[in-house]
Amino acid sequence: MSENKIPYKIYLEESEMPKSWYNLRADMKNKPAPLLNPGTLQPMTAEELSGVFCQELVKQELDNDTPFFEIPAEIRDFYKMYRPSPLVRAYCLEEKLQTPAKIYYKFEGNNTSGSHKLNSAIAQAYYAKNQGLKGVTTETGAGQWGTALSMACSYLGLDCKVYMVKCSYEQKPFRREVMKVYGADVTPSPSDTTNVGRKILEEFPGTGGSLGCAISEAVEVATSTEGYRYVLGSVLNQVLLHQSVIGLETKTAMDKYGIKPDVIIGCAGGGSNLGGLISPFMGEKLRGEADYRIIAVEPASCPSFTRGEYRYDFCDTGMVCPLAKMYTLGSSFIPSADHAGGLRFHGMSSVLSQLYADGLMEAVSVKQTDVFKAAEEFARVEGILPAPESSHAILAAVNEALKCKETGEEKTILFGLTGTGYFDLVAYEKFHMGEMVNTIPTDEDIRKSLDRLPKV
Amino acid sequence: MSENKIPYKIYLEESEMPKSWYNLRADMKNKPAPLLNPGTLQPMTAEELSGVFCQELVKQELDNDTPFFEIPAEIRDFYKMYRPSPLVRAYCLEEKLQTPAKIYYKFEGNNTSGSHKLNSAIAQAYYAKNQGLKGVTTETGAGQWGTALSMACSYLGLDCKVYMVKCSYEQKPFRREVMKVYGADVTPSPSDTTNVGRKILEEFPGTGGSLGCAISEAVEVATSTEGYRYVLGSVLNQVLLHQSVIGLETKTAMDKYGIKPDVIIGCAGGGSNLGGLISPFMGEKLRGEADYRIIAVEPASCPSFTRGEYRYDFCDTGMVCPLAKMYTLGSSFIPSADHAGGLRFHGMSSVLSQLYADGLMEAVSVKQTDVFKAAEEFARVEGILPAPESSHAILAAVNEALKCKETGEEKTILFGLTGTGYFDLVAYEKFHMGEMVNTIPTDEDIRKSLDRLPKV
Repeated sequence: MSENKIPYKIYLEESEMPKSWYNLRADMKNKPAPLLNPGTLQPMTAEELSGVFCQELVKQELDNDTPFFEIPAEIRDFYKMYRPSPLVRAYCLEEKLQTPAKIYYKFEGNNTSGSHKLNSAIAQAYYAKNQGLKGVTTETGAGQWGTALSMACSYLGLDCKVYMVKCSYEQKPFRREVMKVYGADVTPSPSDTTNVGRKILEEFPGTGGSLGCAISEAVEVATSTEGYRYVLGSVLNQVLLHQSVIGLETKTAMDKYGIKPDVIIGCAGGGSNLGGLISPFMGEKLRGEADYRIIAVEPASCPSFTRGEYRYDFCDTGMVCPLAKMYTLGSSFIPSADHAGGLRFHGMSSVLSQLYADGLMEAVSVKQTDVFKAAEEFARVEGILPAPESSHAILAAVNEALKCKETGEEKTILFGLTGTGYFDLVAYEKFHMGEMVNTIPTDEDIRKSLDRLPKV
Repeated sequence: MSENKIPYKIYLEESEMPKSWYNLRADMKNKPAPLLNPGTLQPMTAEELSGVFCQELVKQELDNDTPFFEIPAEIRDFYKMYRPSPLVRAYCLEEKLQTPAKIYYKFEGNNTSGSHKLNSAIAQAYYAKNQGLKGVTTETGAGQWGTALSMACSYLGLDCKVYMVKCSYEQKPFRREVMKVYGADVTPSPSDTTNVGRKILEEFPGTGGSLGCAISEAVEVATSTEGYRYVLGSVLNQVLLHQSVIGLETKTAMDKYGIKPDVIIGCAGGGSNLGGLISPFMGEKLRGEADYRIIAVEPASCPSFTRGEYRYDFCDTGMVCPLAKMYTLGSSFIPSADHAGGLRFHGMSSVLSQLYADGLMEAVSVKQTDVFKAAEEFARVEGILPAPESSHAILAAVNEALKCKETGEEKTILFGLTGTGYFDLVAYEKFHMGEMVNTIPTDEDIRKSLDRLPKV
């Protein structure tokens, strides 16, 4: 393998790192539907949103036209602490699979948050600090977003209150500790510290929680505490904007070596990683400059794209947040305690939902036992213990590479390896002991949850 | 900070990676003392050693003259999976400390073993495989070496039996699980699976174990099982040879940017990381081409350099291994259950011991509560949660940088950041709860342990 022209890992120079984020919405013919005020059912105005988000982020959230937003110098300096991230040629995985396909992955796990989440955390914390705020609140599922936000806040000197989905809190005892190193205040959700938490606990006693519940609690605290705003690690347009740094770096690295992907694959919970990775490629597709197959991979336990409905829904379980038009299982849907905590969200980014509705991308759902099998195979040949979330993309990439083996096609497959699984060893242990099960919602489960939604 | 010419992270190109390991011994005027046969007290011959180690490694162990050993292509390919590792300019730490010093660290934690240990693990596993062996046995303290060896063995298809120091096994419940992902067989040591383990358990019931005990057990199994050899993650000459890749990459990166370190700092347990990092720099010093201050940092709980004696001693507690001349606390010394598991070894590399005896390097010992304080400060500004072992070097580097602040000197400080602390959260938690204590051996503890040694 030594003589290959393309290195195992492509690192850009600092000078090649993106200076602007790319706003995919600017190139979309059908723009994503606006957020609606839950009271009036009218599009949320900038003024209304500014009670929840800081001002600069409101601008980014609402702007469907400006293609590029300059990345402030302080954020670019912070990015240099852990970026550029490597674009890896998976030579060893290709050899193991004996596939003619060429497999690449953009690895975002080489930072202490263990994932790509830090890309948006530092941006959101920066704008909050700049506005003179005291602190931010948020939710976290797998814990990566909470850790990322804790790191960013600690760096900038902001308070950070994290509501962590209870089943993740219990599955990942050490995540809380990492957040503490970074000075964050972490509460398992649902909790009795908020009205909405107490209400959910009453209705679903013993629940393991969900991202939707935790969002409700974090928003309640942010909007009722002086000097605080709420920040979110996925779903929102602004998050996809910040995460475009993943795709932009990937595109620059691929262009540098003359590589053109045929298929682009990413796991999808709220859409932050997939949306970021595909941005510049989807931009070319939208502008008719190139074509790519783009595949979202979601867990069979929480299949928003593949079994949800495209409609307006609340982003949170407590129904206190604005409504977003998206593929959704219904905001009262509480997925089983699957180990891919970061993918347990009932809805999906409005941007990705619109692209999916327009037939510009595909989606598949996969079972967690298959995901862990792929994760372990990957770890053994590529030397990285992947996060369960990321392993959804690994499985789909492996399946595509095996198809190439059958057909003999030399396709170029690109996938997003969002992070590492160092805090997911309880899950790996369950997998080894044969105790991992696949809990897949019935059509009736989904129907019931959707039926609870108010008609919009 | 954006305009600095030196990037935050220097990554070499693959083509700039070392093609040979550098054998520091070739440039030493006073060679390290040879290993002695515990029965005859005569220097171990190649034939005697080949019952314990594979043949190529025996050659590397005994060769004090050949300056370079070519790195086989397969090992170089494996290195490309996770190397080159970044040389990081600690801009954020410098700013936090308000020091005129320039701080650099070579970060070896971006791989699933979480440390530099993989550099030697793949080499040792490769030669074992090449010799047609079935498997290898080893000990592990903090768990990094065991994980690294599991990864290397899994990659090459070798069996891997790991004896893990019991207190680390208990402090780091998930390390075992990572090794299982890589198919290793892990036993807490001392155990009742070996004669020497049973003997130690009888003499010290309830002991948390030590690297010395675990080595004895692993050697017993290797020498009594067909097709097995023993491999060791530190102390040995061959390990320092493989780890020279750290220093060689660092030197190439520094030369590329015209950087010359004044002070080079590394933590020291058995010496693998420090010996590797300093290799090419010490080579220059030995050849009179340059001068550097070189500082070994060890835990106050296990202070081989600073409070041990330079003499022949066993590398293991069970006294079944060859004797090495080294700074030692006595092979029956069992350090307190300090959280820097990788530094809890009673002795020290013979190479480093000779260099220290010759006044070519310095040593300091530090307390673990101070170490964790430095670790946390570092994590907050540099974004990497460091391993407790590595944090010994951080503390010493910070202390040097603070001295520069007092004197106004613009020294260039280089330290080795050997790994990440993702599996050390129990320790971080204890630190946060104020439950961490510093257990420092008394002079009598050390005296007693040294007095138990046979006179050589």
